[in-house]
Amino acid sequence: MSTHKKTNQRINNLFKQMEKHLLDAFLITNPSNVSYITQYIIEDSYLLITPYENFIITDFRYIEEIKTNIKGFSICQINGSLFNVISSLIKKLNIKRLGFESRHLPFAEYDKIHKLVAKHTKLVPAIELVEKLRVVKDKTEISLLKKSTKITTDMLLFLKDVIKPGVSELDISGEANQFLRKKGASSASFAIIVASGSRSSMPHAKTSSKIIQNNEPVLVDIGVNFCGYKSDLTRMFFLGKIHRDIKEAFEVVFAAKKKAIDKLKPGIAIAEIDAIARNYIGKFGWSKNFGHGLGHGIGLDVHEDPAITRKNSSLLKTGMVFTIEPAVYFPAEFGIRLEDMVLITDKGCKILNGSLDNTM
Amino acid sequence: MSTHKKTNQRINNLFKQMEKHLLDAFLITNPSNVSYITQYIIEDSYLLITPYENFIITDFRYIEEIKTNIKGFSICQINGSLFNVISSLIKKLNIKRLGFESRHLPFAEYDKIHKLVAKHTKLVPAIELVEKLRVVKDKTEISLLKKSTKITTDMLLFLKDVIKPGVSELDISGEANQFLRKKGASSASFAIIVASGSRSSMPHAKTSSKIIQNNEPVLVDIGVNFCGYKSDLTRMFFLGKIHRDIKEAFEVVFAAKKKAIDKLKPGIAIAEIDAIARNYIGKFGWSKNFGHGLGHGIGLDVHEDPAITRKNSSLLKTGMVFTIEPAVYFPAEFGIRLEDMVLITDKGCKILNGSLDNTM
Repeated sequence: MSTHKKTNQRINNLFKQMEKHLLDAFLITNPSNVSYITQYIIEDSYLLITPYENFIITDFRYIEEIKTNIKGFSICQINGSLFNVISSLIKKLNIKRLGFESRHLPFAEYDKIHKLVAKHTKLVPAIELVEKLRVVKDKTEISLLKKSTKITTDMLLFLKDVIKPGVSELDISGEANQFLRKKGASSASFAIIVASGSRSSMPHAKTSSKIIQNNEPVLVDIGVNFCGYKSDLTRMFFLGKIHRDIKEAFEVVFAAKKKAIDKLKPGIAIAEIDAIARNYIGKFGWSKNFGHGLGHGIGLDVHEDPAITRKNSSLLKTGMVFTIEPAVYFPAEFGIRLEDMVLITDKGCKILNGSLDNTM
Repeated sequence: MSTHKKTNQRINNLFKQMEKHLLDAFLITNPSNVSYITQYIIEDSYLLITPYENFIITDFRYIEEIKTNIKGFSICQINGSLFNVISSLIKKLNIKRLGFESRHLPFAEYDKIHKLVAKHTKLVPAIELVEKLRVVKDKTEISLLKKSTKITTDMLLFLKDVIKPGVSELDISGEANQFLRKKGASSASFAIIVASGSRSSMPHAKTSSKIIQNNEPVLVDIGVNFCGYKSDLTRMFFLGKIHRDIKEAFEVVFAAKKKAIDKLKPGIAIAEIDAIARNYIGKFGWSKNFGHGLGHGIGLDVHEDPAITRKNSSLLKTGMVFTIEPAVYFPAEFGIRLEDMVLITDKGCKILNGSLDNTM
């Protein structure tokens, strides 16, 4: 594939993956992968990567933006059907083996393309070729992730004065949504969770119009989208007097987080990290109250590889960025979750949210 | 299928679709369809609908919320693989023909289920069985859509005082995001577009840190999510003196919108509505400057059926809700878009945003 103009390192890395799978071309339909390869955040657009020419397939709405911001791709405008554009390209380029993102192409779309090109082209389901590249972050990405995390830590400090008895959960989310845009983030990275009192026992509670009361815990799970890169942190805010059961659970979760983070360095199995936090929580009889994984990779997606779970036997690598978020939930009573973002370094790890208090 | 306990009308309507396609069971993986059928907004959950029993398949994070809020479904908790849960259910229930949502099941997931059940069960790609039901809104939905639209019209009036020279596009989005939560909406229904000056020429401009200047047009495309139901309106804000070319384009787009809306009533072909606006804009030589459809259905999704395009030959029906949004875009100069939300009634239509000014 030496004839290709070397547009960027990310595409060159993808070529190696394509060669391994003997692909003549690769169709990218996962929006985050499109952004990763083009190094620009764009919606509703697809890429066809070949050794000779790269194409971006889009519609009327994005032509002007793409012309200005994305270089090195020939633009194909969809006028009728997306499938016709793709199948014409495939035929014109005489592609025999086309890789596609099988986790990001609905069956119906696969089926349409397949029917149009089946005579000449084999469609090869390729699992996460670009996702694999994204697991280890490059310098540009780490810099953007740091900025994204900084806006979120600033926001949590700001919320310290906002969260008080009498305001609603949605009001708090509203203030946060305003704050993050003042700091240059384009949006929250997911629907901000503000869960107060017994609502904190629902791991993915919907922020509601419930009014914050005195003497209750408030769980805030929050993050921003900065130039496409996501952050995600969780903190507990304690108002007034807090029951000793809640305090005890907090201490356990805090210690579990610290124990897991202390162990982070390249070469350690991910499952082992999960086990450290999980076994510690288990000692208190709360294994069933911690029903999700310990964390997740984060970058262009809020949840991406590596999953920090007991089933992931792969090893930590320098440049991975993920969350560590142990928790315990007691239905209809309360929940405690603490979430940091870490970057694996040559020597150990860096906590991207720095010295942010665990109790706000 | 008479043995089934009649839990709700929506499921009964779905049974009729399933009978037509000779399906023993139907797997729902589109989140909006899950919400439609359960009448509750829930994430990361799937439904298996059968004549004898209905199942909701979810994970640890949502169990407490589902137990409290969704009735009439047996809860299946995913402990390992989603595919194992689904395939065990299919085998246990002896399902021969399983319908699945081919536009909302990635090829990789289809392939996994297929491999697990292929011996006994035929997987039948079903295009939009639930989506078809959602095209005509019921009373509950219309009431929620009205509330969702009202919050957005209130927000546009509020923004009249916010949008002025010196504030940034992102600041305006921040104020809007705070306002809508004060009014009880859970979030914006999409990334709010604030595009000022020449940036308004990009139909899907990203809201940026650009500062609003005097004498420029500001395009605001905005909507909220109220109990799952989305609104979507676009208005132009004109600051100071506006060039006569911009005014002229505004008048043309405004007239195109009025002409299309005046024609709305049950029985008219959708393509005809699109043509009215498009032909009018074409008279000014601007056909190529209006490169998207005239509108889109709206409900649980911001974009759903019916698409209001020149290719849609289906007829308007009482209870449809959609946008009418003619536009013209002049790259690097300016763009004008005006967007209303309409409900088709027995006699004609109701503009859900009422008498909201077209120039704010």
